[in-house]
Amino acid sequence: MVKIAIDMMGGDDAPQIVLDAVQQAIKDFQDLEIILFGDEKQYTLNHERIEFRHCTEEIAMDDEPVRAIKRKKDSSMVRMAEAVKHGEAAGCVSAGNTGALMSSGLFIVGRIKGVARPALVVTLPTISGKGFVFMDVGANADAKAEHLLQYAQLGHIYAQKFRGVHNPSIGLLNIGTEAAKGNSLTKNAYNLMKEQDDINFKGNVEAKGLMEDVADVVVTDGYTGNMILKNLEGTAKSIGKMFKETLLSNFKNKIAGLLIKKDLKAVQTKMDYAEYGGSVLLGLDGIVVKAHGSSSAKAFYSAIRQAKIAAEEKIVETMRETVGE
Amino acid sequence: MVKIAIDMMGGDDAPQIVLDAVQQAIKDFQDLEIILFGDEKQYTLNHERIEFRHCTEEIAMDDEPVRAIKRKKDSSMVRMAEAVKHGEAAGCVSAGNTGALMSSGLFIVGRIKGVARPALVVTLPTISGKGFVFMDVGANADAKAEHLLQYAQLGHIYAQKFRGVHNPSIGLLNIGTEAAKGNSLTKNAYNLMKEQDDINFKGNVEAKGLMEDVADVVVTDGYTGNMILKNLEGTAKSIGKMFKETLLSNFKNKIAGLLIKKDLKAVQTKMDYAEYGGSVLLGLDGIVVKAHGSSSAKAFYSAIRQAKIAAEEKIVETMRETVGE
Repeated sequence: MVKIAIDMMGGDDAPQIVLDAVQQAIKDFQDLEIILFGDEKQYTLNHERIEFRHCTEEIAMDDEPVRAIKRKKDSSMVRMAEAVKHGEAAGCVSAGNTGALMSSGLFIVGRIKGVARPALVVTLPTISGKGFVFMDVGANADAKAEHLLQYAQLGHIYAQKFRGVHNPSIGLLNIGTEAAKGNSLTKNAYNLMKEQDDINFKGNVEAKGLMEDVADVVVTDGYTGNMILKNLEGTAKSIGKMFKETLLSNFKNKIAGLLIKKDLKAVQTKMDYAEYGGSVLLGLDGIVVKAHGSSSAKAFYSAIRQAKIAAEEKIVETMRETVGE
Repeated sequence: MVKIAIDMMGGDDAPQIVLDAVQQAIKDFQDLEIILFGDEKQYTLNHERIEFRHCTEEIAMDDEPVRAIKRKKDSSMVRMAEAVKHGEAAGCVSAGNTGALMSSGLFIVGRIKGVARPALVVTLPTISGKGFVFMDVGANADAKAEHLLQYAQLGHIYAQKFRGVHNPSIGLLNIGTEAAKGNSLTKNAYNLMKEQDDINFKGNVEAKGLMEDVADVVVTDGYTGNMILKNLEGTAKSIGKMFKETLLSNFKNKIAGLLIKKDLKAVQTKMDYAEYGGSVLLGLDGIVVKAHGSSSAKAFYSAIRQAKIAAEEKIVETMRETVGE
């Protein structure tokens, strides 16, 4: 049995998408137990493997993160994080306020001793369908070279345990592939990483090749990572929009659009990184998964599955032993 | 009359594309004079407004920049930059080694007194077709907040003079729109910029909106700017590749491809930033334009036109008066 704590109230379409996802996950995974935190008036399920706990507060998407988790002690998010801290659940999942969830992770669940800065990790799609682990996408905007080295070590374990890559290649995101390229942060990080025997460091990788399997894990600071993540999303969306406009611009193109509709949809699905699950805050003494903000029930379901696998693969325990003190 | 110095030997398809572009530019602009630097054996033109100067050396694409410009004194690139330094030409254009051209700009043409760090500027496409000025895309990887402020001031003049935007809006590239977002660099830069009366600062802009007219000028450090530039390019290319594969994957899709071929080509042209000319190194005491590396004759022609407009609009003089000491 694996027990996961879930925030029923976070996310744009909560609680409905959370309830749908929980129902499906409980049905699909016979070894899953859930502790669900939220407003009892909106709780509609009933299952022996779901324990419902009523909370009187919820954290809003625009709440100031640190203040919210300090003041709203009876919010579904805070109580979910406390369940992980107290060992009642192996991990937790929320689609709520990202900043508040990171703060809950840092201040309630807590860091693994020896991990200087936790990192927010996503799996992004590549053309081949293989995907890659990308971190940090925004936990720590002012990173130091030593932090990037630890990200590489955490990412190595994550790619091994969660994605099943035997000896994951680690790339350092940079503005050129040569060792001497970059800013002082990446130059220093390069020098630290190349000395490490416990990771398969393949050197610098460029942002232009990210969708083409340049490495299994790509490491960067939270400022750059968040920027690149948003740029990937925004560019794909803008190009998609232009393409759509072209397909609707005249009768001839509309016919073409009908012919390729299904296959285009398949491409779009391939590029949808919600398919790969949520973001994970790595380096914490428990599993904290953020389901994407505009999560569908399907994306939330993926995030629950992700927390379950992380628990079964003992990701936290391995990180504690190898990266921690 | 405007006189522009041109490096005939730089770029993947030099000298042919340079010669083609020069021929076209001389024909189109009756008030243009060119000093062309290169190997006399490969010079095939003959025109009263082209002055050819023979050089015995050339800088290769893989030469180490600073060493190359110090040692290859008789290279076409170095002599072109010297022509600007000595006031023989108002500006110069090369499609050669970017690093060497930046070094030529810095060490031969020289900075405007009072400008701490020159910035490399490109104009990028947006969906509307309007485009925006983006800087720094790689001149200075470790920027300080004061540098970003100067970029904003330089970008303001560039957008006004070169792109004809009356009161250009300036955005600071960041990982969120709120004032408190970002790393220490962007937080400090935000505070400096919001105090300035001489620029129309509109606050932080996000990487996801870059193609949707978020600002007339978007300012960032050279590390982030180079990263985003490559990511935009790479993502657009990867998505284009997937579309193309889809359109060739079966008979039905091939028919659709034929129907929309012309309109797709138009979208592609709209997104091709070579159409907007080359990159300009702003903050120097002369105009230095880098035509894109894999330049076509058309892109090189755009870069010549760009240098000519910059000279006519007295961009350097204006920067000297307003940003310089």
